Amino acid sequence: MLSLFIQISSIYHFEVEAAFATHKIRERFSTKISLQFLLLSFDLRFLANRRRPPPTQKVMGTTILSDLGTEIVIPICALVGIVFSLFQWYLVSQVKLSLEKPAAGDKNGFTEALIEEEEGINDHTVVQKCAEIQTAISEGATSFLFTEYQYVGIFMVIFAGLIFVFLGSVEGFSTSSQVCTYDATKMCKPALMTAVFSTVSFVLGAITSVISGFLGMKIATYANARTTLEARKGVGKAFIVAFRSGAVMGFLLAANGLLVLYITINLFKIYYGDDWEGLFESITGYGLGGSSMALFGRVGGGIYTKAADVGADLVGKVERNIPEDDPRNPAVIADNVGDNVGDIAGMGSDLFGSYAESSCAALVVASISSFGSTHDFTAMMYPLIVSSVGIIVCLITTLFATDFFEVKTVKQIEPALKNQLIISTVLMTIGIALVSWVALPSSFTIFNFGTQKVVKNWQLFLCVCVGLWAGLIIGFITEYYTSNAYSPVQDVADSCRTGAATNVIFGLALGYKSVIIPIFAIAVSIFVSFTFAAMYGVAVAALGMLSTIATGLAIDAYGPISDNAGAALVSLALFGAFVSRAEITTVDVLTPKVFIGLLVGAMLPYWFSAMTMKSVGKAALKMVEEVRRQFNEIPGLMEGTAKPDYATCVKISTDASIKEMIPPGALVMLTPLIVGIFFGVETLSGVLAGSLVSGVQAGVSEHAKTLGPKGSDAHKAAVIGDTVGDPLKDTSGPSLNILIKLMAVESLVFAPFFAAHGGLLFKLF
Amino acid sequence: MLSLFIQISSIYHFEVEAAFATHKIRERFSTKISLQFLLLSFDLRFLANRRRPPPTQKVMGTTILSDLGTEIVIPICALVGIVFSLFQWYLVSQVKLSLEKPAAGDKNGFTEALIEEEEGINDHTVVQKCAEIQTAISEGATSFLFTEYQYVGIFMVIFAGLIFVFLGSVEGFSTSSQVCTYDATKMCKPALMTAVFSTVSFVLGAITSVISGFLGMKIATYANARTTLEARKGVGKAFIVAFRSGAVMGFLLAANGLLVLYITINLFKIYYGDDWEGLFESITGYGLGGSSMALFGRVGGGIYTKAADVGADLVGKVERNIPEDDPRNPAVIADNVGDNVGDIAGMGSDLFGSYAESSCAALVVASISSFGSTHDFTAMMYPLIVSSVGIIVCLITTLFATDFFEVKTVKQIEPALKNQLIISTVLMTIGIALVSWVALPSSFTIFNFGTQKVVKNWQLFLCVCVGLWAGLIIGFITEYYTSNAYSPVQDVADSCRTGAATNVIFGLALGYKSVIIPIFAIAVSIFVSFTFAAMYGVAVAALGMLSTIATGLAIDAYGPISDNAGAALVSLALFGAFVSRAEITTVDVLTPKVFIGLLVGAMLPYWFSAMTMKSVGKAALKMVEEVRRQFNEIPGLMEGTAKPDYATCVKISTDASIKEMIPPGALVMLTPLIVGIFFGVETLSGVLAGSLVSGVQAGVSEHAKTLGPKGSDAHKAAVIGDTVGDPLKDTSGPSLNILIKLMAVESLVFAPFFAAHGGLLFKLF
Repeated sequence: MLSLFIQISSIYHFEVEAAFATHKIRERFSTKISLQFLLLSFDLRFLANRRRPPPTQKVMGTTILSDLGTEIVIPICALVGIVFSLFQWYLVSQVKLSLEKPAAGDKNGFTEALIEEEEGINDHTVVQKCAEIQTAISEGATSFLFTEYQYVGIFMVIFAGLIFVFLGSVEGFSTSSQVCTYDATKMCKPALMTAVFSTVSFVLGAITSVISGFLGMKIATYANARTTLEARKGVGKAFIVAFRSGAVMGFLLAANGLLVLYITINLFKIYYGDDWEGLFESITGYGLGGSSMALFGRVGGGIYTKAADVGADLVGKVERNIPEDDPRNPAVIADNVGDNVGDIAGMGSDLFGSYAESSCAALVVASISSFGSTHDFTAMMYPLIVSSVGIIVCLITTLFATDFFEVKTVKQIEPALKNQLIISTVLMTIGIALVSWVALPSSFTIFNFGTQKVVKNWQLFLCVCVGLWAGLIIGFITEYYTSNAYSPVQDVADSCRTGAATNVIFGLALGYKSVIIPIFAIAVSIFVSFTFAAMYGVAVAALGMLSTIATGLAIDAYGPISDNAGAALVSLALFGAFVSRAEITTVDVLTPKVFIGLLVGAMLPYWFSAMTMKSVGKAALKMVEEVRRQFNEIPGLMEGTAKPDYATCVKISTDASIKEMIPPGALVMLTPLIVGIFFGVETLSGVLAGSLVSGVQAGVSEHAKTLGPKGSDAHKAAVIGDTVGDPLKDTSGPSLNILIKLMAVESLVFAPFFAAHGGLLFKLF
Repeated sequence: MLSLFIQISSIYHFEVEAAFATHKIRERFSTKISLQFLLLSFDLRFLANRRRPPPTQKVMGTTILSDLGTEIVIPICALVGIVFSLFQWYLVSQVKLSLEKPAAGDKNGFTEALIEEEEGINDHTVVQKCAEIQTAISEGATSFLFTEYQYVGIFMVIFAGLIFVFLGSVEGFSTSSQVCTYDATKMCKPALMTAVFSTVSFVLGAITSVISGFLGMKIATYANARTTLEARKGVGKAFIVAFRSGAVMGFLLAANGLLVLYITINLFKIYYGDDWEGLFESITGYGLGGSSMALFGRVGGGIYTKAADVGADLVGKVERNIPEDDPRNPAVIADNVGDNVGDIAGMGSDLFGSYAESSCAALVVASISSFGSTHDFTAMMYPLIVSSVGIIVCLITTLFATDFFEVKTVKQIEPALKNQLIISTVLMTIGIALVSWVALPSSFTIFNFGTQKVVKNWQLFLCVCVGLWAGLIIGFITEYYTSNAYSPVQDVADSCRTGAATNVIFGLALGYKSVIIPIFAIAVSIFVSFTFAAMYGVAVAALGMLSTIATGLAIDAYGPISDNAGAALVSLALFGAFVSRAEITTVDVLTPKVFIGLLVGAMLPYWFSAMTMKSVGKAALKMVEEVRRQFNEIPGLMEGTAKPDYATCVKISTDASIKEMIPPGALVMLTPLIVGIFFGVETLSGVLAGSLVSGVQAGVSEHAKTLGPKGSDAHKAAVIGDTVGDPLKDTSGPSLNILIKLMAVESLVFAPFFAAHGGLLFKLF
């Protein structure tokens, strides 16, 4: 029975190990493939360049990379990512859930076995139990996600209808062409068709997001038991499996998101032709779809996992004094299902949403800049090319790791992973330089709230770089505040001596404090990129920050944090795009409409957090009572002779999360609509700015809140501190960055409607 | 020994009782005096009106109340307040700290005695012990405040020097007159003299603030033992003493602040003559002085009281299972000293600061509006007249209470106090209507960021009213979220069943949730007042919200909350005044300078909270260890046969608070200077707006955070929840509203300097 606990315990640790694994696997298998594809993509570029005539000396300049080259580079990079990902999947599946004796001569790794083998345990039983547990978790997760998707599906249909009706009504459902918004000399496609295409891209984004989340969950549950079994053989082997499954998810998400977006643009272009204004306006629906699914995934999954986790910990660890993830705990299966649906599936959707939104923000601003008016396709696709190169850079990074570092012991992991982060950032800097050189004209103009601002290609290079390097700094700062190797966490751990209360006070203080440097880093990024290239600069800085997130995700804490910091940039870029689309040129704090928006917007993250925390609390109460009941009423449970009723706990989490995800979801989705319709675009601008500046702080601080205490001594004070921080970190925190991005992208999609028909309240009075 | 505990326990309850007492006393003694003064002030007004010639039909109109009338009404009202306050003091002092048998026939109250008399306790011993404890607390508090004031005094001198040098340098220390900023046809006094007068008013404000805090503390400690003794005789008697001391403080503060400000304006006017621009610019120093002392008082006192409270509770209540404020607890004297220096002295300074700042904000905006250019003294003094009427209304409110309600039992208190709030608000509405009618021209112009906006007197009436009524709504909402009569607190209490973690989660969620409606109320106030009368409207709305705060303070929780909500309005008004003085006309979020300011400003409340919470945590750790040591090492301490070493605990709190108040104080005081000098006025505008929208949320939510759990069952989970919330509520929360106001008023004082020499960093690059 104890070995069962050990197995489940290692399943719990899968998250971290999976992250580590991503790298290890690249060391062995990615070398050839990635180099090959890299060379191919470079070849194609040079080929494309050779074919084109010598560049004419236009004022705005032309790009070195031809349009054809662009049309080839992006899908090739995306396919490289997908092939690489599928190959990893194949390798993971090679670990059979069958009996396999560890080789006696395998000193490397086995001496550092993650799980101590117990004498007298039948290996066959272990394998069988592992398979059983995997099945239970996988079935639970699949069944929950299907239930969730049913509800979310209804929302999707209703919201798609809203998009069509609202955007269609802008020109009164007229089917005739109209004068373009930003170039009065041209005719653009009818608003009705933009409504149709926006609806289509919304649905596409939503479906891609759901698939991303679902696949992520499937990969994780598939790899769980395999990691557990490999862990019995030693550090090296377990890492490889966990790394592989991490790589499957990371590369699949990035590549899939890129490819679907790329194909959608090309398909829409068939209809839109030269009307890029309408084309990229309708493409923003893709970001909205991806992001709204991510919200429900994060909130629903977050409530699910934390209800189970808090419930399991409080009774199990504090009252019954049994370890984390002990199979005697009735909530243990629900807890593990939660890890997969909340952390994995939610994160999958979220990550996809970030990619989609930052790309859309950059594209919509670019479409009304010189790229759009001169129809320079390569320059227009610059954001997508940056993401493409990001995929390749993440592959190359692994090669460096193979040559200079090899992880043999547990202690080597942390420095090796840190070096990975630095290498990927350095490589990406070179990559961005190349892309900026070949895919941008030497000089171009960017739309800047009513005026066109002249930007040089090296300035845009600096914009992407500042985002990229700010991400690295934020990652290291987060490491400092959340690793038990440094004094902040040690202080928090130390405060457990005097009880749970001082522990929570120190934890909260640490969370607040961890915000300071990231906010300065974000502020510098915004200032530099904003100054160089207005909102387009901010959008590409966001892309820069997200470009190495596949590597960042390898270290569990880095990924979400830099995604969260990226949220500020993405949201600001979307906000800028919204303001441009809504045809306002200033958002003046010194007007009452804007100021009240700012004030109410800053309140929304608190409202949202209150809702989700209360939901977690309520669900956890029910879970605690059920777990207590089972311990009291099922004889032999504590002794391990009777089986707990896992299913009831799974049901409590499922019901709670489905029911409780609706109010916070509605708050986020309805706020832009209500504010836009009744108060108009100025107030909505205020709300977006307010929620952005307030939400990014809360998100970062809540994230760090109990990464702290986790490293501390496992006594009751620490468990209480941990439990308080958990819903902040895993439910409210990650959802807050979606909140600020989603409200911005929703406003952007509905901007023409609000500009035409919004502000009813002020029109009436 | 047990009776000693009971006495100290009732001392602890003094805070709440003092609040109740304010009303009770008015019932009996204020009737004649207030009516008399009221009639006198009305007489004087009519007298003044009779003397003046019929109003000439100027475009802007004239006021019904003559300048002479204004010169009489304001000081009379202030003096009424002071006389009333002194009279209460005299009555409190009538309760002798000597033996006095309760009358056997006094059924009323005695049957509801707050403290159950124990058999066989010698009354003489009780009185003697009370006197002893009062002396200990009073001496501890006085000695702490003197230590604090020494450090703060050094700061005051340095900062006064800075004000003189920076403002003097605006025109290069020139002694010649200069063209006025807002009226180029006139000559104004030299900037050097404004520097001198600003410095003087800063010092005056600081000294008045310190005196307000010190007197508040003296009154409270003086009344402590007397309340305790009266409590032995029954509800009624104890209330009277506690009410009286509450009234002493409330009326003394309001009247004193008003009088000093009024005298300062009149003295400065002798030099400035018709240069009202310079006059009211230098008067803003008064607000800065008051507010900066309040910051140190709140932070220093807050750290002191919470270090002692958390330390005392954790060891006493949780580990040793002895009740709150048990004299066996070594930290009990430090805890009680803390209540007096933190809650009472800090609140005194804070309240004075709020009055001073909101008046200064209104005055400086008015001085550059038509009141200033037409030199209409009565209209100019409108904010001070509103405050004067507030004092009278608070007196009349008590009369109503005498006739319609009489508090006989504990249960009657809450509804009676609620009615008081409603009555004072209704009366104040009438008062404002009168003031707006007699003290304002029917039409005038208000400076609105570069333009002059025409405002009617009834519009300004509505501005004050909307602030006043928003305050009432916020008060009731806070009552709902913090009273154990309603479901929110009951839910939190209920969550203790499953442990401290769920309790803290529910408490945090409740805190966040309690923000929602207050923010909407503030938003509506801002929108209405801003729309009607630009920043002047916001400033007078703030005055409206603060005008009945003497009554609001009667119910412990209402006062700070509506003061906190008022902070948003005060800060916005100061912000508006700063923007006007710095000669910028828009604060556009869509410029990088402003946006990064917004982002960093929104982070400051978190940084500040992290500092203060960490300070409390650190000091509490030391306190816990000292208390544990004493319980372990002093034989007979738990049995009550040995005396604890109170002095060491007092020293720990004193040292910690003096040392730890410097970094957060420096953060707040230096931020506007650094941002203004290096980044300039646009970024500083962003910082002010950001800290305002973020700080007001955090302030309100942290305030409510554990008002919740306090009503719950007194088991360990609740104590932990309470302890977590305490530093948020009593240290970080109240200081945050000072943070946002202080940064705004500091920016306002230094505005001419920043406009002339600021933004170095952008000038260099």
